[in-house]
Amino acid sequence: MRIPNQAKSGFLVSGFIGIFALFLSSVSYAADPLPSWNDGPAKKAILEFVAAVANENGKDYVEPAERIAVFDHDGTLWVEYPMYTQILFAFERVKELAPQHPEWKTTQPFKALLEGDMKTVGASGMKGLMEIVVATHSGMTAAEFEMEASRWLATTKHPKFDRLYSECIYQPQLELLAYLRANGFKTFIVSGGGIQFMRPISEKNYGIPPEQVVGSSAVTEFQIKNGKSVLVRQPKIAFVNDKAGKPVGIYEHIGRRPILAFGNSDSDMQMIEFTMAGEDRRLGLFVHHTDAEREYAYDRKSHVGTLDKVLDMATENGWIVVDLSLIHI
Amino acid sequence: MRIPNQAKSGFLVSGFIGIFALFLSSVSYAADPLPSWNDGPAKKAILEFVAAVANENGKDYVEPAERIAVFDHDGTLWVEYPMYTQILFAFERVKELAPQHPEWKTTQPFKALLEGDMKTVGASGMKGLMEIVVATHSGMTAAEFEMEASRWLATTKHPKFDRLYSECIYQPQLELLAYLRANGFKTFIVSGGGIQFMRPISEKNYGIPPEQVVGSSAVTEFQIKNGKSVLVRQPKIAFVNDKAGKPVGIYEHIGRRPILAFGNSDSDMQMIEFTMAGEDRRLGLFVHHTDAEREYAYDRKSHVGTLDKVLDMATENGWIVVDLSLIHI
Repeated sequence: MRIPNQAKSGFLVSGFIGIFALFLSSVSYAADPLPSWNDGPAKKAILEFVAAVANENGKDYVEPAERIAVFDHDGTLWVEYPMYTQILFAFERVKELAPQHPEWKTTQPFKALLEGDMKTVGASGMKGLMEIVVATHSGMTAAEFEMEASRWLATTKHPKFDRLYSECIYQPQLELLAYLRANGFKTFIVSGGGIQFMRPISEKNYGIPPEQVVGSSAVTEFQIKNGKSVLVRQPKIAFVNDKAGKPVGIYEHIGRRPILAFGNSDSDMQMIEFTMAGEDRRLGLFVHHTDAEREYAYDRKSHVGTLDKVLDMATENGWIVVDLSLIHI
Repeated sequence: MRIPNQAKSGFLVSGFIGIFALFLSSVSYAADPLPSWNDGPAKKAILEFVAAVANENGKDYVEPAERIAVFDHDGTLWVEYPMYTQILFAFERVKELAPQHPEWKTTQPFKALLEGDMKTVGASGMKGLMEIVVATHSGMTAAEFEMEASRWLATTKHPKFDRLYSECIYQPQLELLAYLRANGFKTFIVSGGGIQFMRPISEKNYGIPPEQVVGSSAVTEFQIKNGKSVLVRQPKIAFVNDKAGKPVGIYEHIGRRPILAFGNSDSDMQMIEFTMAGEDRRLGLFVHHTDAEREYAYDRKSHVGTLDKVLDMATENGWIVVDLSLIHI
């Protein structure tokens, strides 16, 4: 059993077992609703919190309608390392679409990507990556985009795990989602990722229907094509549901303040702050990726899912940092 | 019984009884799920449609998760005549906020509104009205706006009906919403109105939770004020969920194509078209306001809820136009 690294991160607790699961239905809840979680402070806090808000006679009771739980996606529900899944999808789309875009041969960062020069692609930063996402996620109908995303997610494997990207999801979180729903919670994904990229897999992976997915979006236009109404994705970002955008996305899509929020990076801080700023009892949690063997270990200086300020601020804010630990079951 | 005016509007059918209801719970569904509806073609079409999509062994079966029904708000679920409720709220806010905005005394259309010159306000058109909405719906936190909207809705009465605006809702639609939900449908409001203006009353009025309300929105910013995180509404429109915006709003918020859509004006055409363009069986309906005695009669040339093109195009498109008729129960 891994010893929690409490010196480094304050409220860091070991309570998380990092395994992946293909099927939610294979889990048994008869005895312990969170069998993949260690019996540590994080699990204890979750069980106590859920019992408290569901207890009609208790002081912390919350009406079922207000039991809103929000989860970040990349690094919180599925693997984001070594690169966000959607970015890899966008890279693949550049290669597929290159014949229709001769100008990419001379335009960065497309040129570098087509030449396999990932160093230059990386040097283009978030701005360059966003250009790639915008270019590859627009110019088609909503239905066409859904088909492309679904096809890629159903066929492309993660090199380390040799399983589909869409199946690199965290078993403990599946248990937590099911446990929350069994206790009257409505569960949402609130991600910086593209809202329409996640929706094809949200129900199957997490039991979260598409209407409970909140994410970044492209400007989309309603058009009549060949006498049929279609939605066409435009090469322009409509909303970035990341960092300070997450509470805004929650306000627009959900219209209620969550009582539980789970993230894994500094980009989730505002979502957690917004959740915790509500009256009554709240729970804010972060995954800390510390399992280099079975998954990945990264935090303060990572190029994806940077977890830095959170580790400094967790204790004073009452945030729970949960280890994705080395423990096997 | 009012005779359907089929000559004028093609598929116009008499099936709708225009009464208002205070309490959904006062309705009985034991025998007839739609007791306020006449036994006409519209009611028949609805009952047949719901039975067909809910019949697991039938060719038109639709999985419960895909049974999405969307309803316009103004003029479809609650009264919009003689002026949209939210516009009246904005007018009232101008009067309340005037002391903080001395510039309004010399700026149109605020000047005219403060002087009671409604002709000039009207002449400022939708552009002028939008300026008033933007100015009065921004500069406060999300919580403050919700409080103001709730207070106004809980205290302001409609002059014709001498009851709260928030209670001027259509009994037949309450029955339909409940009937759809009883048959596995998820019901949504999809309105050109402000998403945050409707949410305080959506659950109480219609049994529709805030997260199932889709509407127009203001740019909103996450800020830290006095050490506490707040959302501040900005004087800028983020999204107009009207006309061609409605299918886009549905795409962003719901992520599925509805199988039933109900509107009442030309502004709902794109939503109905988008709904009907899906494969399998669909139902598209429009309210036609024809009850001058008990409500209002208006359509082609109305300044609110204009119903013109719909009346010409309904038959060829298979849209059902439902009379809000003179029949009393």
